[in-house]
Amino acid sequence: MIKVGVIGYGYWGPNLVRNFMEAQGSTVVSVCDQRSQRLVQLKTRYPTVKTVDNSSSLFQDPEIDAIVIATPVSSHFELAMAALQADKHVLVEKPLAANSDQATRLVEEAARRNKVLMVDHTFVYTSAVRKIRELITANALGDIYYYDAVRVNLGLFQHDVNVIWDLAIHDLSIMDYVLPSKAIAVSATGISNVPGQPENVAYITLFFEAPQIAHVHVNWLTPVKVRHTLIGGSEKMILYDDLEPSEKVKIYDKGITVSQSPEAVYEMLVSYRSGDMWAPRLDTTEALHREALHFIDCIENNKQPETDGHAGLRLVRIVEAAEKSLRGRGQLVEIE
Amino acid sequence: MIKVGVIGYGYWGPNLVRNFMEAQGSTVVSVCDQRSQRLVQLKTRYPTVKTVDNSSSLFQDPEIDAIVIATPVSSHFELAMAALQADKHVLVEKPLAANSDQATRLVEEAARRNKVLMVDHTFVYTSAVRKIRELITANALGDIYYYDAVRVNLGLFQHDVNVIWDLAIHDLSIMDYVLPSKAIAVSATGISNVPGQPENVAYITLFFEAPQIAHVHVNWLTPVKVRHTLIGGSEKMILYDDLEPSEKVKIYDKGITVSQSPEAVYEMLVSYRSGDMWAPRLDTTEALHREALHFIDCIENNKQPETDGHAGLRLVRIVEAAEKSLRGRGQLVEIE
Amino acid sequence: MIKVGVIGYGYWGPNLVRNFMEAQGSTVVSVCDQRSQRLVQLKTRYPTVKTVDNSSSLFQDPEIDAIVIATPVSSHFELAMAALQADKHVLVEKPLAANSDQATRLVEEAARRNKVLMVDHTFVYTSAVRKIRELITANALGDIYYYDAVRVNLGLFQHDVNVIWDLAIHDLSIMDYVLPSKAIAVSATGISNVPGQPENVAYITLFFEAPQIAHVHVNWLTPVKVRHTLIGGSEKMILYDDLEPSEKVKIYDKGITVSQSPEAVYEMLVSYRSGDMWAPRLDTTEALHREALHFIDCIENNKQPETDGHAGLRLVRIVEAAEKSLRGRGQLVEIE
Amino acid sequence: MIKVGVIGYGYWGPNLVRNFMEAQGSTVVSVCDQRSQRLVQLKTRYPTVKTVDNSSSLFQDPEIDAIVIATPVSSHFELAMAALQADKHVLVEKPLAANSDQATRLVEEAARRNKVLMVDHTFVYTSAVRKIRELITANALGDIYYYDAVRVNLGLFQHDVNVIWDLAIHDLSIMDYVLPSKAIAVSATGISNVPGQPENVAYITLFFEAPQIAHVHVNWLTPVKVRHTLIGGSEKMILYDDLEPSEKVKIYDKGITVSQSPEAVYEMLVSYRSGDMWAPRLDTTEALHREALHFIDCIENNKQPETDGHAGLRLVRIVEAAEKSLRGRGQLVEIE
Repeated sequence: MIKVGVIGYGYWGPNLVRNFMEAQGSTVVSVCDQRSQRLVQLKTRYPTVKTVDNSSSLFQDPEIDAIVIATPVSSHFELAMAALQADKHVLVEKPLAANSDQATRLVEEAARRNKVLMVDHTFVYTSAVRKIRELITANALGDIYYYDAVRVNLGLFQHDVNVIWDLAIHDLSIMDYVLPSKAIAVSATGISNVPGQPENVAYITLFFEAPQIAHVHVNWLTPVKVRHTLIGGSEKMILYDDLEPSEKVKIYDKGITVSQSPEAVYEMLVSYRSGDMWAPRLDTTEALHREALHFIDCIENNKQPETDGHAGLRLVRIVEAAEKSLRGRGQLVEIE
Repeated sequence: MIKVGVIGYGYWGPNLVRNFMEAQGSTVVSVCDQRSQRLVQLKTRYPTVKTVDNSSSLFQDPEIDAIVIATPVSSHFELAMAALQADKHVLVEKPLAANSDQATRLVEEAARRNKVLMVDHTFVYTSAVRKIRELITANALGDIYYYDAVRVNLGLFQHDVNVIWDLAIHDLSIMDYVLPSKAIAVSATGISNVPGQPENVAYITLFFEAPQIAHVHVNWLTPVKVRHTLIGGSEKMILYDDLEPSEKVKIYDKGITVSQSPEAVYEMLVSYRSGDMWAPRLDTTEALHREALHFIDCIENNKQPETDGHAGLRLVRIVEAAEKSLRGRGQLVEIE
Repeated sequence: MIKVGVIGYGYWGPNLVRNFMEAQGSTVVSVCDQRSQRLVQLKTRYPTVKTVDNSSSLFQDPEIDAIVIATPVSSHFELAMAALQADKHVLVEKPLAANSDQATRLVEEAARRNKVLMVDHTFVYTSAVRKIRELITANALGDIYYYDAVRVNLGLFQHDVNVIWDLAIHDLSIMDYVLPSKAIAVSATGISNVPGQPENVAYITLFFEAPQIAHVHVNWLTPVKVRHTLIGGSEKMILYDDLEPSEKVKIYDKGITVSQSPEAVYEMLVSYRSGDMWAPRLDTTEALHREALHFIDCIENNKQPETDGHAGLRLVRIVEAAEKSLRGRGQLVEIE
Repeated sequence: MIKVGVIGYGYWGPNLVRNFMEAQGSTVVSVCDQRSQRLVQLKTRYPTVKTVDNSSSLFQDPEIDAIVIATPVSSHFELAMAALQADKHVLVEKPLAANSDQATRLVEEAARRNKVLMVDHTFVYTSAVRKIRELITANALGDIYYYDAVRVNLGLFQHDVNVIWDLAIHDLSIMDYVLPSKAIAVSATGISNVPGQPENVAYITLFFEAPQIAHVHVNWLTPVKVRHTLIGGSEKMILYDDLEPSEKVKIYDKGITVSQSPEAVYEMLVSYRSGDMWAPRLDTTEALHREALHFIDCIENNKQPETDGHAGLRLVRIVEAAEKSLRGRGQLVEIE
């Protein structure tokens, strides 16, 4: 039984507490938050859980095996580092850290101490995203042409991080998980419509070695909610709409056929192909439940998480590059 | 009665012929196409119309007042220039010409001869787009924050022009018509997935003097059709979905309110606002019918068209800048 | 080459004329309408077609092989009978006739003279409906549980026939074509909201020998358009949405499994099954084109049409029974 | 502070417990369920709540002011009667009782003891339904023409009650609340596709004094979920789609205008009207929260609930009549 301590009981924390309480193999023994009102709410739900207002008591608690961090981005590094140095396993809410130096140091510290360092890239643990990876891994789509994601709505306007750190990271984590190739450069644009506040709209193009492109559009200020991902391949194409209640992933047997014959030079080179559409049944397991079980499994069996510190670092590097490009109004920035 | 000669009876030509036949104040007297089979098809529909396989006979025909050009882009300049020099009024399918030099020379020639030069930016003549302009002109949206357009589907793969010239020009023409401010710089990215063929995916960001951004996403190779435009303002926001059968334009009384009080510095600066949604009734007039009547009106009353040569030139300049930026992988390019 | 004469050039007539002009194996030689303005419109499109204002000249014309009737329902019997008696093949717009006596006499007359009598149940010739029949015929759905159709919108308010004769007949014709079993009794309800006018809302339940039910909901006065058919079976279920641009037919591997074991008596008898969804590619042939070719084929090869007089008679009998039930406010009426 | 005892902690009970725990003015002191496992689950969430396996101890508990019943329909009467006789206020899950005799006796007992008897017609307390009632009460729709509700999906197959008692009662309760007139007769049809099990499909038509009609379609076995209500009036029409995330209620300024002039007899009597669509902002309060507050208010201030025993009785009478009509295959049955 893995004993978990949770730091941060704001928006996301309650979901983490509930899942580690209910997952077989773990329980939550202690929760830390500086806001006493939040801890009162926790107590009415989970009267047996200890509540503390200082994270250091969690790190010092020998009963605790693992620390789950659900605090603002700026505190991720300090808390995760302290937890690792106290020889705890760590699960950090996305993004892993506020910059790639911090992320690198966390990855190194976890390796040095042989502790599990996992990032809460929740979407990776949804049935929809796992099905997409399964299809791409089985080469069902053929050559990947493009990956296009839109994640917009009238969402919470953040004050400390911009819309890339807040929303685009979800799409980048999905892309990182399902695409076999890694982005090498980025061109990003965006704007802040409220003076003095972070960017609330952003457009990010990612370039790859292969003739392949990816694009992420995020916006905090749209009147309608859109969660739409298109993945085009030479054989098949996917539409992943996270707002669909049941058919979230649709696979289209549509595309083009490029003629290779010499006669085709004088004719139509590209012809269209239209076939069936298919929406596979998706397992209804909650993503966070699957993620909690995976974290427990990695701890117990000394495995590397699917969304480990390296994945967290890769994403922080892309976001850093995207921010730099955005400041340069689309200027190409290579990803380390 | 304006006597019209039409050059090009391929995909779009039949729509132009039908509308100038049916519009009060005009008739089609002659149609030119080099493909005899197309002319046979025309004859079964309109046996009274003359058919020719050479455009010069149209220019020389003293009966003809106006020439309508619906041919590939590469021939626009030569045909439109010849028509103007023959003292005909001219309506050219979009884009006006293959580059801004050509477009400039057409604008100058039309001015010199006091002839109407109009570009077929069809969407400008739809009821939906006119309603959007009406709302923005009446300042119903407040400050414009962003303009975001998506135009994707498994469409015809062009061989001579890329997806920007083919599809993005529609969105750029709508934006040019509805937004009071003009774009000053562009960052574009894109890719060709078929070796040797033009780009089939493109992403274009447009920058303005004001803290305002625009973005156009076009793609020839998506499994589903999307025609989605979001326009965000400080007071209201618009969703324009051209695929909706009746409620194409929805106006949302949603947005944010930014607190100006000194206390707000220490608190939440941005609060959310959610109100009613409203979809105005739209006139069901066909866009091309409205456009044909406008062309006739401009000729008869010596007026400047809403989509005149200057508008056509502005768009060609944006497209040229976008192409240049795309080659530079997002490099910022100023628009002349 | 089958020479066709068309009676009635109102709403539907132009579609019939266009299709018999363009179908290989037929041509339209003569069109009759009492409204001279309609004939003028025809002439601008098809100058070679003869126009007459009296149907008798069509019947007497020895050049004409087949008569296509697209007039109000009340005239169907008289015109179709006259055409048959003039030894012409006949295609009548739905419904075949205004009552079952008339329909029976037409069926008998066609048999006596060995002429093709076909009813224009257009939806039977759509790719969607043919795919549904193909699936049901191959027993892909298992036992049919229910057939539920909704056809509502702010449509043309008819003055001579009610919404059952106008709209429900479309659904009844589809059902007649795709279901192997025939309805034996009907219970219908409805209302007229405009005093002195025919019913504008109707609900029709159909009973079968098997434990199977069908229902049709039609309404001329709804603010949105719905064309939605659900067909439930023990193995699979179909959603047919005629307003979907491409995925009109969706097949769901969903349903229930009924336990037969004795233990199940004390437990859950019915368990749920959820699987993939699949939308087959549909041929894009226009229904009326397919129908025209079928009519020609039946004439040339002396075949029985898929929507022959017997089918037309069956539907008229159902509609008559439904109307009688509606007057009795749901009273059960057996179908002859 | 109203002290609440809850009987039944199955599917719906947890929602009731949560809401009476969180509503200002009430708390849950005791929960009864015969399944010890359910009570264990309750205890992990609410360790302070007493758990009992016998309802009589709740009735005898002098601390308890009100009893909330969330058990199968067959036990509603016995439990509610015992609670009233123990001088407790009562909230019963829908339907109030298994037949109208039982419902009548509960209404009488509550009146005799001056206790609040309320039925949990949850939808009446949604913001959407309250907005619709507000519009109809303000006569915004003009004369009501029809009320059409569809509530279908692959839902839980009940063994003790049919789909009318399970699903249609939701729509009947909404209709009862929003329409000023009451139904006087019913014609219903339906079928059971699983031998020995209750009807899983039903169609119910309701007749009124006025030229107005209502219809409810319910089905446990459809592959897709639909929650669609159309309400047509002479002035405006409503589409209420409960599955829409935000615009659940749309009001269409569409309809017909009936000409009254004598000339119109010879012409078109009915002309169409098409105007704007409008979707009002809806309060996001949870229905059950609003309902809990209303129950508390009725107890504290001796008020009659909006969904009181009389409303519960009216619905049970309609359902009884509908079942009788269904057995008679659509036979008209008057509602008491």
